[in-house]
Amino acid sequence: MNATMLAGRLDLTTKRFAVEEVPVPEPAANEVLVAVRAAGVCLSDLHLIEGMFTPVYNPSTVVTLGHEVAGVIEAVGAEVPDRLRVGQRVALQAGQACRMCENCSRGRTPCLQVLTRGVDYDGGWAEYTVARHDTVVPIPDSLPFEEAAIIPDAVSTPYAAITTTAQVRVGESAGVWGTGGLGTHGVQILRLVGAAPIIAIDPSTAARERALTFGADVALDPLDPDFPAQLSAATGGQGLDHAFDFAGAGAARVQAVKSLGRNGKLVLVGLTPEQLDVRDSIGFCFAFHQVVGHY
Amino acid sequence: MNATMLAGRLDLTTKRFAVEEVPVPEPAANEVLVAVRAAGVCLSDLHLIEGMFTPVYNPSTVVTLGHEVAGVIEAVGAEVPDRLRVGQRVALQAGQACRMCENCSRGRTPCLQVLTRGVDYDGGWAEYTVARHDTVVPIPDSLPFEEAAIIPDAVSTPYAAITTTAQVRVGESAGVWGTGGLGTHGVQILRLVGAAPIIAIDPSTAARERALTFGADVALDPLDPDFPAQLSAATGGQGLDHAFDFAGAGAARVQAVKSLGRNGKLVLVGLTPEQLDVRDSIGFCFAFHQVVGHY
Amino acid sequence: MNATMLAGRLDLTTKRFAVEEVPVPEPAANEVLVAVRAAGVCLSDLHLIEGMFTPVYNPSTVVTLGHEVAGVIEAVGAEVPDRLRVGQRVALQAGQACRMCENCSRGRTPCLQVLTRGVDYDGGWAEYTVARHDTVVPIPDSLPFEEAAIIPDAVSTPYAAITTTAQVRVGESAGVWGTGGLGTHGVQILRLVGAAPIIAIDPSTAARERALTFGADVALDPLDPDFPAQLSAATGGQGLDHAFDFAGAGAARVQAVKSLGRNGKLVLVGLTPEQLDVRDSIGFCFAFHQVVGHY
Amino acid sequence: MNATMLAGRLDLTTKRFAVEEVPVPEPAANEVLVAVRAAGVCLSDLHLIEGMFTPVYNPSTVVTLGHEVAGVIEAVGAEVPDRLRVGQRVALQAGQACRMCENCSRGRTPCLQVLTRGVDYDGGWAEYTVARHDTVVPIPDSLPFEEAAIIPDAVSTPYAAITTTAQVRVGESAGVWGTGGLGTHGVQILRLVGAAPIIAIDPSTAARERALTFGADVALDPLDPDFPAQLSAATGGQGLDHAFDFAGAGAARVQAVKSLGRNGKLVLVGLTPEQLDVRDSIGFCFAFHQVVGHY
Ligand SMILES: [Zn+2]
Ligand SMILES: [Zn+2]
Ligand SMILES: [Zn+2]
Ligand SMILES: [Zn+2]
Ligand SMILES: [Zn+2]
Ligand SMILES: [Zn+2]
Ligand SMILES: [Zn+2]
Ligand SMILES: [Zn+2]
Ligand SMILES: [Zn+2]
Ligand SMILES: [Zn+2]
Repeated sequence: MNATMLAGRLDLTTKRFAVEEVPVPEPAANEVLVAVRAAGVCLSDLHLIEGMFTPVYNPSTVVTLGHEVAGVIEAVGAEVPDRLRVGQRVALQAGQACRMCENCSRGRTPCLQVLTRGVDYDGGWAEYTVARHDTVVPIPDSLPFEEAAIIPDAVSTPYAAITTTAQVRVGESAGVWGTGGLGTHGVQILRLVGAAPIIAIDPSTAARERALTFGADVALDPLDPDFPAQLSAATGGQGLDHAFDFAGAGAARVQAVKSLGRNGKLVLVGLTPEQLDVRDSIGFCFAFHQVVGHY
Repeated sequence: MNATMLAGRLDLTTKRFAVEEVPVPEPAANEVLVAVRAAGVCLSDLHLIEGMFTPVYNPSTVVTLGHEVAGVIEAVGAEVPDRLRVGQRVALQAGQACRMCENCSRGRTPCLQVLTRGVDYDGGWAEYTVARHDTVVPIPDSLPFEEAAIIPDAVSTPYAAITTTAQVRVGESAGVWGTGGLGTHGVQILRLVGAAPIIAIDPSTAARERALTFGADVALDPLDPDFPAQLSAATGGQGLDHAFDFAGAGAARVQAVKSLGRNGKLVLVGLTPEQLDVRDSIGFCFAFHQVVGHY
Repeated sequence: MNATMLAGRLDLTTKRFAVEEVPVPEPAANEVLVAVRAAGVCLSDLHLIEGMFTPVYNPSTVVTLGHEVAGVIEAVGAEVPDRLRVGQRVALQAGQACRMCENCSRGRTPCLQVLTRGVDYDGGWAEYTVARHDTVVPIPDSLPFEEAAIIPDAVSTPYAAITTTAQVRVGESAGVWGTGGLGTHGVQILRLVGAAPIIAIDPSTAARERALTFGADVALDPLDPDFPAQLSAATGGQGLDHAFDFAGAGAARVQAVKSLGRNGKLVLVGLTPEQLDVRDSIGFCFAFHQVVGHY
Repeated sequence: MNATMLAGRLDLTTKRFAVEEVPVPEPAANEVLVAVRAAGVCLSDLHLIEGMFTPVYNPSTVVTLGHEVAGVIEAVGAEVPDRLRVGQRVALQAGQACRMCENCSRGRTPCLQVLTRGVDYDGGWAEYTVARHDTVVPIPDSLPFEEAAIIPDAVSTPYAAITTTAQVRVGESAGVWGTGGLGTHGVQILRLVGAAPIIAIDPSTAARERALTFGADVALDPLDPDFPAQLSAATGGQGLDHAFDFAGAGAARVQAVKSLGRNGKLVLVGLTPEQLDVRDSIGFCFAFHQVVGHY
């Protein structure tokens, strides 16, 4: 192993991004060193480079990007538990509990100031990266690095939105606005938990067809003037139990609220600056509607 | 018993309200006849008279108002269960399941088109009223009719908002915006379920003092420039687990969303035309906030 | 349509069963008449004939058996909602709410004295049967009557055990003791809701192989001396989140409790006279184990 | 501060208990040193001395007893968060997460091998004790040390049994078998969360009277032949939603299961060797009963 490596680094002051030669990091006692085999590029990375987001908790002025990372354990710190060993294929969680906030210091969850990999500390756009042991997940040999790398973000985000935040149960209906990166996984996860029907909603014909391939029961064009009638027909006139906005667009949100049935819930997924307007407050309360944030 | 009685009737076409002499109603086989001893006047009644609301399911052109009713059973229909007897002191539910909608006709709850007493069918601003047996609740002798009458609306609404919609648990913090009719009961119910701290928020000094008497731990003036710091101090810097808007004012809603802690939930109680704006969608999602309608 | 039909009738006094010629029943105003196309034979039917069970709520001394019924609507009572029409293919629920108990008469669920079809009132071992409209479920043309008939018992029982009583969530482990009639459906429903791993446990090699075909991840022989180690390996050493006893055998229950992980839950499905012994009360409490009844 | 102190120590090999002079412990970087002001004596301590329990995770052959401890912070390790300061009045949790098990090492709860203070590591029957910072809870000046000391065991155990394990909600009925140390607190906590009615069950007249003082609505003698009728009357014929066995006696458990209503739940609280027999498995399943362990 060389003493230096290439890494994709962002200067947080100037927003200048460059691939630079830097020292290979040394794992602390509670960390492992991982030889990176795959690392994803996420819209959030572009937002960081554009300066739309700024790291909140990073004490440094420069950071190695990359929060979607898979690879092979190269070295193990002295205090790392036995479950992790050199040579193991692993994926890395996209962040970690701070261990200092009011919840962490009391042994409670959730952490109130989660640190994000490749944002608040160095990430995986590099030949090597270090990871605190509790953020390292062994993966089976059958799972390619390229697929494993994106699980901790593009899969885990809709997974948590669907299973934890929305608490979707078998037989409940769900509409997915935006079947791109997150939404395509959303359709598959909804199928996994038994949601029915699963309605994919995307203006792109290709996206709708892909969603049907991945398990959607129906795919609708949100720009079709007949959309409300089509949505109603697909739910037997009941409206949706769950709506997921993976698109982050205001028009989608307005349409999604209107598509909800009684006790229906709209989950806003991800961090977009789009404002949320609920114009019909009487209807919202009369139908016991809910809007929930998630990221 | 006379054949006629006085009743407060609203002409739904002309919006003319008058106390008229009408026949005493006869209970159907599944109904009881109740001699009314107390009947509440609710803001919704004024809204009906003003024409702001119109009954959705009432096939008639005139209706006896009054959805907050208590009295004594005067007669019992042939198919009414044994639990109800002549002479019993009772309160009446403010509405009833339709028994015809998709849920009712499948033996499921909730009814999708609940009928409201004094709106969709004749209510209790009258000497006598009839009530379907499943909407009749016996009350103890220790409970005055005047107090019993308002339980099915001004108490049951905050009760359901707190226990069913918000699912407040012991030790969770709660803010109550507006400690008038509903909010005062809200404070007492939050005390009943062990919420802590309970923070009453009202611009009226008298309302704040009353809230403290009824069990609030802290009472704050929402117009005080120092309100955010006071709210933060009252919750140990954590923000609210639950916020209840009993005021129905847009400014209260904006302030309430800002007062939420992580996973915090704002419940909008009642049917007011006020629009809901969530301007900071990023913050909303980052903190997993929720907004829920209730009436 | 003839005035009489053949029906399989049990004399509740003598326990004599016979196929007899009886009048075709007339539907009441809230009932439909169904031409039976398929009716299942259930172990409970044998228990009734053997005299092990006796109907609790049947006022008659003779009953037409059969609580697993599918057919075609032949006639519709005057008060039946529009959703049901002559000629429709339907399955019948295996029972109905009493509409008289404390919960039913207050508009609440569940009914406290559910009446069972073919037990407390005449069932579907007959050419025709009547059904109260809220117990009639239209089925798609693609579903054969033979399969539809058993859904309301052999499928709905494990469905409710898994989704309502046990509240199995995606990614939770589940063991199925007894993969016969109910258990085979249990395996499929566990797959539907995303349980993982699903472990089928049956002494019959054929039953185990069938369970693997139907979606079990692992199939174990409960009589294998190595069973505890195999179960542990299959759950990564964690023990089961959920165990289902579809076998109704005391030995299975003892083994199932021992197989639970922390917070693990054993659901006893069905009405069998087998006693339940928890011999290690300390271990039961230390691991926060649960035992839940279901039928 | 002296270099030595008195401590109540148990030799785990010989079961000999003695008050000995030992060095004052030094807090590690993540610990505080506490000057003990109050320490409770629990039945579990007697069980340890009797040899009925043996520490599972204690690597030492001698241990300072005492898991119910309150005092004043005397010194603070280098890595202890700011929330803890010298001079603060505190109570100590009765145990701590291991930080090594499968859950702890993955940042999940609950810990699968919780370490108990005064059992698996040195406790508070001493002039001074050390405590890991996440197990230290500041207490208000208004709370005496003697009361604070028992909160982490005799109060927290029924609190968690009632709020977390049983999930008691407002308006649900609850029976408390055994209103001694835990049960008396149980009655108060049930009042706190709005349970109704609260039924105290104890053969001791004094215990029953105390329970009524502390908030029970009814107090019954379990040995009264009329007990079943009294229990039924107290619950309006519905049976209990929740039963808590704080007595740890087999007879109480049999009686408690019989007292449950539909969906009723019996929580077994604490570690007692008593066997649990459910003799009427049919009735148990028919009524969807539950038995849950807790300690
Ligand atoms: Zn990302
Ligand atoms: Zn934290
Ligand atoms: Zn009202
Ligand atoms: Zn008005
Ligand atoms: Zn309805
Ligand atoms: Zn059956
Ligand atoms: Zn019933
Ligand atoms: Zn103790
Ligand atoms: Zn003892
Ligand atoms: Zn642990």
